[in-house]
Amino acid sequence: MKGRAGRRRGAPDTKGEILAAARTVFGERGYDGATMRAIAAAASVDPALVHHYFGTKEKLFLAAMEIPFDPAVIADSIASSAAGAGIGERAIRTFLGVWGDPAGRAPMLALLRSAMQHETAARLLRQFVSRAILGRVLVGFEGVPNGVLRAEAMASHLIGLAIIRYVVKLEPIASVSEDELIELVAPVLQQYYDGAFE
Amino acid sequence: MKGRAGRRRGAPDTKGEILAAARTVFGERGYDGATMRAIAAAASVDPALVHHYFGTKEKLFLAAMEIPFDPAVIADSIASSAAGAGIGERAIRTFLGVWGDPAGRAPMLALLRSAMQHETAARLLRQFVSRAILGRVLVGFEGVPNGVLRAEAMASHLIGLAIIRYVVKLEPIASVSEDELIELVAPVLQQYYDGAFE
Repeated sequence: MKGRAGRRRGAPDTKGEILAAARTVFGERGYDGATMRAIAAAASVDPALVHHYFGTKEKLFLAAMEIPFDPAVIADSIASSAAGAGIGERAIRTFLGVWGDPAGRAPMLALLRSAMQHETAARLLRQFVSRAILGRVLVGFEGVPNGVLRAEAMASHLIGLAIIRYVVKLEPIASVSEDELIELVAPVLQQYYDGAFE
Repeated sequence: MKGRAGRRRGAPDTKGEILAAARTVFGERGYDGATMRAIAAAASVDPALVHHYFGTKEKLFLAAMEIPFDPAVIADSIASSAAGAGIGERAIRTFLGVWGDPAGRAPMLALLRSAMQHETAARLLRQFVSRAILGRVLVGFEGVPNGVLRAEAMASHLIGLAIIRYVVKLEPIASVSEDELIELVAPVLQQYYDGAFE
């Protein structure tokens, strides 16, 4: 532990220690319960330093979980300004943009794996998806009855597609081209926007 | 190990030993590669005894994985004699019949969890789903272009729904009644049968 007090004041490993503390605190308290202050305390650094390095809780979470994309950008590209028109196609295209790339897929699978093993990890994923993704995608469902339910049904289809195509690798769906998959899935997802469900 | 040789000849634990051997052999060789003979050898019993206790490889697999339903019955109730009409609704109803019951859900989740952790378990699940479920459901897609792909897309939606509703427990989709879920999901799944995808 020699020199540890010195490192705490900004030596190269401080960022790594904040990230490790963040993983612990998010894991224990969930996304909603974790605070920047608690994470700073767990890393034995000043909260101002956590804000300085990571800005917001969402950005700290993304860095701690090594998620290589910005959910705000993802959500905006699905919701778009044109609202419902083509939302099914935008959803599957955006999905393939993240999951089609092994580097994007790995951290998402890690999150999903933990969620399937531990209730605390499931809670973390649930809260994060609600806050960072669904909250924003819902802009695209404005004025549609049961918009949240429709958006979640759409998301559940995409999660299942990720598992069947990239994990279980069931053929032929594991090998069809992205274009074919878009042609197959987009009009079906679109039904969750256009359908008469009240 | 006293008395072990005696037990091999039919003492109460023989069935349990065959099931343990089956889990090992299925895990190592996959569903297609595992044979009743190899499982008998791993359990140090006569192959005839394995057939006597479990009948077929599929039934032995179901017993070893503690799957509390018969995939043939499941697949038949989705495919039905009326082919495509109402296949979306039959699929979501059958799905809820298995996953809505915690006793049915537990072994399915166990299979899915292992598949997400180990490539060998993913292969096992892939081969089992192909042989025991999709092969039979396809009867309902006879004459439909890309029937396998459509059936797999339908299945992927249901797998994702299981994860979002029962594992991640995203609200409101975790709490809506089964009737509401059927009303929401059935017409969307039906699109995989009725849609123009060629």
